[in-house]
Order: sequence, then structure tokens, then C-alpha cells
Amino acid sequence: MNQLPNIILPEPTLRRLPWYLAYVDILRNKHVKHVSSTRISKALSVDASQIAKDLSFLGVKGRTRIGYEVDDLARALSDFLGFSRAHKAYVIGTGSLGKALIRDSGLSNYGLEIVAGFDVDPAQIDRNDTGVPVMHIDRIYDAMSTTPAEIAILTVPPEAAQESADIAVGAGIKAIWNFTPYRVKVAEGVVMANTSIYAHLALIYTRLGFASESR
Amino acid sequence: MNQLPNIILPEPTLRRLPWYLAYVDILRNKHVKHVSSTRISKALSVDASQIAKDLSFLGVKGRTRIGYEVDDLARALSDFLGFSRAHKAYVIGTGSLGKALIRDSGLSNYGLEIVAGFDVDPAQIDRNDTGVPVMHIDRIYDAMSTTPAEIAILTVPPEAAQESADIAVGAGIKAIWNFTPYRVKVAEGVVMANTSIYAHLALIYTRLGFASESR
Repeated sequence: MNQLPNIILPEPTLRRLPWYLAYVDILRNKHVKHVSSTRISKALSVDASQIAKDLSFLGVKGRTRIGYEVDDLARALSDFLGFSRAHKAYVIGTGSLGKALIRDSGLSNYGLEIVAGFDVDPAQIDRNDTGVPVMHIDRIYDAMSTTPAEIAILTVPPEAAQESADIAVGAGIKAIWNFTPYRVKVAEGVVMANTSIYAHLALIYTRLGFASESR
Repeated sequence: MNQLPNIILPEPTLRRLPWYLAYVDILRNKHVKHVSSTRISKALSVDASQIAKDLSFLGVKGRTRIGYEVDDLARALSDFLGFSRAHKAYVIGTGSLGKALIRDSGLSNYGLEIVAGFDVDPAQIDRNDTGVPVMHIDRIYDAMSTTPAEIAILTVPPEAAQESADIAVGAGIKAIWNFTPYRVKVAEGVVMANTSIYAHLALIYTRLGFASESR
């Protein structure tokens, strides 16, 4: 059950594909019809042969001298990355970041449909200021039968991160998107993605510090 | 001027330090006084010798049998990562994600002080619904002299990402925190951090897809 097929996409490829999509979408909005891997390469500073290799995972092939059809490539990338289908998600922890993600309508353009929020703070529960119902975390089991979701977005305080993830997985959640700085552990077979915004802040601060010290 | 000192911290270390801080903060809230690298190792699934090595970059050393002083370690990590000082930032692009980040009060706990927002959409400008002034992007030069910032948080549509970054850097911004799916290029010496939320979504979707196909 937890066995993944052998042809799972390498993570670096998966990281580059959204860049290609963003660039190809821009061309599409400009009514450009064809694009070569050389042109994508120049725009994004990624090796052209790497681009061709990455795109071959999608079964997309460019034609000699003409390149890729922009419309086809955009559709293939969006389909492959899962952005054209709706994926239901819960937000666990409806503090400022959780609310912010619920309100970020941009995520729905990338296939994320947040259907409920959960919290333990009575002040957050049953409010509807975000347009999405917020329930007590104990109700996640009921919610999974009435408005099920596959993904749990974790925006709780770090000390509640592991327990919240355990509850979500226990209720049947298949993927955890962790925005907390805590390193959450999940059972094998549960998908785990960390968006380490605090690590990125630390990276910026320390690099800025080194840059100014060396001036 | 763009030369960095040799002892710049390796990025994997920088990625792990916020995990240690999150864990040590939890211990501190529980009034735990000392922690060993073995205990941190067990909680975070990071090799104990790696932890000791990472922490040695900060000049922090544990004592045999006693381990690290929790308070000292938390303070050293927070100081080192730059979370205890305020770093001023602009948000460029005050759509849903930009507004969400301005409203996320949690970021200020990690030393990020957003002092102004910029946009080109007249509907966004001079509004004050986020508590931070939003100006036309043309006014970024004036803003840099009245309320300067070092960091620009890029939350514009992908097609505006490169130009917005160029304008920000031209106005004197030293670091770009890119939330767009576009691969922005900056001159050497400008700090660049990408938070690829769309790549993380794609990772979740495709891993979920593979997992369900293999079921």
C-alpha cells in the first residue's frame, strides 16, 4: 500500500516544472504560439538539455526548429502538477497565518480548495470571517465524513504541531503541509511537505548580515 | 564589496537551526533547564553529532552529562538567526497573498517588520485596511528615504516579478524574498530567497497521486 512506483519524479525536476509553467503562462498571455527550450533556458537560466529532459517526464516533446506549442505545454504542465484539479484541504490552526492562507484566493488557482478550518481556541471556533467554517479540532473526524479532505495545512504554534499532525493523520488525512518551524514526523506513506518560511527569513537575515559585515 | 567571508554558514545547517530553536522554545515554555544533543536528536530525528556540529557554528557548547542550558541556547539561536532584531521590509504586490503576509502578525515574532506595501492597482493604493500604508510602486524611491527597508517581499503576479525585483533593487533593496512561481534573477550581492509554495503544492499533489495509483 505504501509502495510507490519506481518512476516517481525527482524532486529537483518537480521544483523546476512550476518555473516553466509560470514562464509559459506569461508567453500565452502575450499570445506567443511556440517556444523553444533555448528560449526557456535563457529566460530562466536553466540548461536547455535539462529542460528537454524535465519535460520528457510529461511526455511532451518539442519539434525541431519550432519548439513546443505554448498552449499544449501550459496545459500539460498544469495537468501534470495537479493545478487544474481541485484538492480539498483543511487548515489546522486558524491564527494569523492560517487565516491568511484561507483568505489567499491565489491558492485556488493552483488547485487548492480549503474547505474547513480547525482550532482549539473558543474565540476562533464557529466564526465565519474568512468564509470557511472553523470547528474545534475534536470535530475533524465528523468533518472527514461530511466534507472530507486529503491535505492538512499545519499553521498551529510549534508546540502543537506534532499532536495536530497525529490527530489529522488519525482522522484520515493523507498529506501534511507543515508551515510551523517544528519538524513534524509522520508515518511512512503520509505525504509531508515543509514550507520553512522561518528558515528562509533566517537565510535572508544571515546573508544580509554577512554582506554588510564584509562591506 | 560583494565578497562574502569564508565562514558563511552552510545552507543545510541554516535550515536545521530553526528546528532546534522551535524545539528548545517548547522546552523553555515547559521550564526545562537543560537539554542534551541526544534528546534533541531523538525529538527531531537529526544525528546528535550533526546537532553538536551545527551548534558549534554559534559558539555554543554543551557540557558533559548536563548538556546545553535551554535559556542560553534559545537566546543564542534566536540572536544568530536574526529573529531578535527587527528587519524592515516592503511587500511588493498587495493582492491576496501580499495582504495575507502583512496581516500575519507571527512574522514580527521572527524579526520581520513590514513597513510599507506597493502596488500598481489604483484600487489597492492609499488603502489602510491592513494597517500598513500601500503606495504606488513609483513611490518606492521616496519611501526608501523616509521609511527605508532592506527586504522586498515579492507577491506580484508572475509576469510582473522580474520587473518588480529590478525596481526594488534599483531603489536600494538588498534582499528579495520571492513568493512568485517565477524564477527572478538579481545581480550578484543581492540576497535572494525563494519560497516556492506552488512547488510544494505540486509536490503534495503528485505524491498523493502516485500514492493513490499504487494503492
